[in-house]
Amino acid sequence: MSAQEDEREQVSAAPPQTHLDEVLRVIAKVRLVEGLVHRQGEQGGRKPELVEGLVHKQHVADLQKRIDRLHPADIAHVLEGLPLEDRLLVWGLVGPDREGEVLLETSDSVRETLLADMDNAEIVAAASELEPDEVADLAPDLSDEVVQDIIEARDDEDRAQLRAALSYGEETVGSLMDFEAARIREDALVEDALQILRVYDELPAQTDSLFVVDRFGRLKGLVPLAKLVVSNPDVPVEKLYEPEKVSFAPESDADEAAEAFERYNLVSAPVIDASRKLIGRVTVDTVLEHVRERRAQQDLAKVGLREGEDIFASVWESAKNRGPWLALNLCTAFVASRVVGAFEGSIERLAALAALMPIVAGIGGNSGNQTTTLIVRALAVGQISAQSAKRLFLKEIGISILNGAMWGTVLGMVAWMLYRNVALGGVMALAMLLNLIVAALAGYTIPLLMERFGRDPAVGSSVFLTFITDSMGFFIFLGLATVFLM
Amino acid sequence: MSAQEDEREQVSAAPPQTHLDEVLRVIAKVRLVEGLVHRQGEQGGRKPELVEGLVHKQHVADLQKRIDRLHPADIAHVLEGLPLEDRLLVWGLVGPDREGEVLLETSDSVRETLLADMDNAEIVAAASELEPDEVADLAPDLSDEVVQDIIEARDDEDRAQLRAALSYGEETVGSLMDFEAARIREDALVEDALQILRVYDELPAQTDSLFVVDRFGRLKGLVPLAKLVVSNPDVPVEKLYEPEKVSFAPESDADEAAEAFERYNLVSAPVIDASRKLIGRVTVDTVLEHVRERRAQQDLAKVGLREGEDIFASVWESAKNRGPWLALNLCTAFVASRVVGAFEGSIERLAALAALMPIVAGIGGNSGNQTTTLIVRALAVGQISAQSAKRLFLKEIGISILNGAMWGTVLGMVAWMLYRNVALGGVMALAMLLNLIVAALAGYTIPLLMERFGRDPAVGSSVFLTFITDSMGFFIFLGLATVFLM
Repeated sequence: MSAQEDEREQVSAAPPQTHLDEVLRVIAKVRLVEGLVHRQGEQGGRKPELVEGLVHKQHVADLQKRIDRLHPADIAHVLEGLPLEDRLLVWGLVGPDREGEVLLETSDSVRETLLADMDNAEIVAAASELEPDEVADLAPDLSDEVVQDIIEARDDEDRAQLRAALSYGEETVGSLMDFEAARIREDALVEDALQILRVYDELPAQTDSLFVVDRFGRLKGLVPLAKLVVSNPDVPVEKLYEPEKVSFAPESDADEAAEAFERYNLVSAPVIDASRKLIGRVTVDTVLEHVRERRAQQDLAKVGLREGEDIFASVWESAKNRGPWLALNLCTAFVASRVVGAFEGSIERLAALAALMPIVAGIGGNSGNQTTTLIVRALAVGQISAQSAKRLFLKEIGISILNGAMWGTVLGMVAWMLYRNVALGGVMALAMLLNLIVAALAGYTIPLLMERFGRDPAVGSSVFLTFITDSMGFFIFLGLATVFLM
Repeated sequence: MSAQEDEREQVSAAPPQTHLDEVLRVIAKVRLVEGLVHRQGEQGGRKPELVEGLVHKQHVADLQKRIDRLHPADIAHVLEGLPLEDRLLVWGLVGPDREGEVLLETSDSVRETLLADMDNAEIVAAASELEPDEVADLAPDLSDEVVQDIIEARDDEDRAQLRAALSYGEETVGSLMDFEAARIREDALVEDALQILRVYDELPAQTDSLFVVDRFGRLKGLVPLAKLVVSNPDVPVEKLYEPEKVSFAPESDADEAAEAFERYNLVSAPVIDASRKLIGRVTVDTVLEHVRERRAQQDLAKVGLREGEDIFASVWESAKNRGPWLALNLCTAFVASRVVGAFEGSIERLAALAALMPIVAGIGGNSGNQTTTLIVRALAVGQISAQSAKRLFLKEIGISILNGAMWGTVLGMVAWMLYRNVALGGVMALAMLLNLIVAALAGYTIPLLMERFGRDPAVGSSVFLTFITDSMGFFIFLGLATVFLM
């Protein structure tokens, strides 16, 4: 971001909602005048009045001024909060030099609608304002042709970096990395280092240290800016630098890197290859964004959504995004339904079974989900060792027996009193106990199996679990009832 | 952290699991020798052999060395992964000067077990190594008496800061704030600023700028270190400083502050009072930790857990943590069960109803949860304006009609073929459609209501939603069946 932009942009701690509300107010005025002109045109067939034309221009200019003052992240937020027509009006007012940055900040679904409004030349121009690692972030949404054009428009160094950035997988450190690592040779003096800093119009954001390299570009360590500031200019850098706390390979897991940032309170960390050659760096702002995006993605994936929906997408688009999940759940529900179907004879003779069976199934699901949530968390922070795994398993079974005995007794008594049927109460209590044990078994096993098979246990565990606690809940309760009550 | 500690601590990008595994290996050796000695003692009544005593000492010394080399965050992780007995063995080996930092890094439930092993004097000593804002983080787990002792052991400045830190609510910027803001008067020269930097043994972590204040301590702006480094020593600071991008009040919402850090890529930001007096600062490492803790808390709260469980807690402790949630769900399940109970007459005559009703209820829950998840997300990023709310509502209803018509038809046909009963198929299809509309209504309304009443919509929405989709699903399906099929 250049110094000039820095001055004209307004940032604030106020929630970005404020900006959206302001823009909505101005757009309402713009649309009002347009509506007026349109209606006059319809009624009298006369041309739009000069006055209205002027007012319209004034409102658009007002809108332009507000947009110009906003930070790209806030513009992105405003765009996401606008229906398509208004969104494109505002998008048209964003200066070409800022389009790239705004695109970076928007969600995938909204970015699509913006890109659809641009021709290839515009996209290439917008990308020209971005760093290679930022272009790589946009690339999945661009056609191969446009990506090729962007690569060709670059100079040699950029092109190499861009190719590298494009090659890293989504869940790797490479995808979080930028190439703006400020570096200094170990045989330089503090004076030289300061000279390097002066060369930058503005230092790359989140620069807390200079990376020290040898003459082959291999990382030796780093010098914190704070140390540099208070050192004598004629001291050689090699007397000052300290070993880096942590470094990553571009292939390292992005989530593990994020954890290391949190554990060791890092602002930036070097990325090196197998021969310790410095490739780039990861900064804490990217990590923070990664953590939040990952969370959003998981929240959505838990209810079967591949991506955030543009809240103004068409009903049809949205239904397509949501359908597959419903279909999957329909299949599992159908299997559970067939389990019940197998006991229709018993249900005909004692309809109370139909009323009580959802309780057994439901509480199994609730209890199993508690187990799964705790196991997923323990897995995420790497706290399950071979020794603790067995212990944890026995503990979960123990808790399910305790809870099952307690709540089973309560519900058994309720069923007994409600239906004046002791045997039914006994079956209810026993079924609760058994289904809670099944839930603990499943709640414990499913996330571990998913982890083993390389799936994210936070995401898919719940469907499987509910499938098992429902089907088994029905089977156990109706089965016991058939044996003991029929 | 002192320079000396910096040298002896080993940090690494490797998952902390590695450290846990190593420690577990050494502990196994320690325990093996202890077991040997114990068994010999039992068998022969002789005293433990000198050799075994020596070996035991060696293993413990080995353990000590490994612990000393670990970063406090990694020690905390190791402690969390150990059963109580081993945990206290390791805790005994942590140096008194690092106990405070380790306590800060452990989860609440594990911290309790460590504090229970310390007497008041030890806790006060451990706290003496911490900054006031860090003590405030520990305070909720300490007795009032100990907190009082800690306050009294401090000098006046610390005491005032500590009292301030203790007064801020958990979800405020005050709880994220520290008091280590490096400040400089506006009338100082760059030279003076460098002098200030030299005074620090090490600059406070995450210092990317000096905060510039007037003679009343009011914030004027900030000077990035990078700018300071390349400036002439005799330039006055007032020529250099720039307005801060964002500042917070101590009462501001912590989540909103975290969002601002992400939007504007901040490393640190000033906290000021109403008269712009500089009180402290928030740094990105605290924000990152806040974001992750908040997520963990929400994940747990979604399944009714107040806090993370110590994975080695007793079955009894754990059951107490999980019971209330099961009780709540039992109540809602009971109500749904009574809805079914009201239609027992119909079920007796057509047991197929019992087999099909869970499908209608279940898919309603799945579909409603999709709506709720998207609304919660839109609320979290402040994207629902008065205008878009109505539009969103209509869209959700539209999607539910589309999905309901489609999947209702599919399931209606399946039911028809399965039971050779056209009317039953029709009832099934209609019930699916209606329950999906109910699910959209509830999925949309519940999070908005929760937000309105100041509850976290991400946490409790799902129980309410499932309650409604279950009860209404049963009611609609069995009701329609009773009207049209009986």
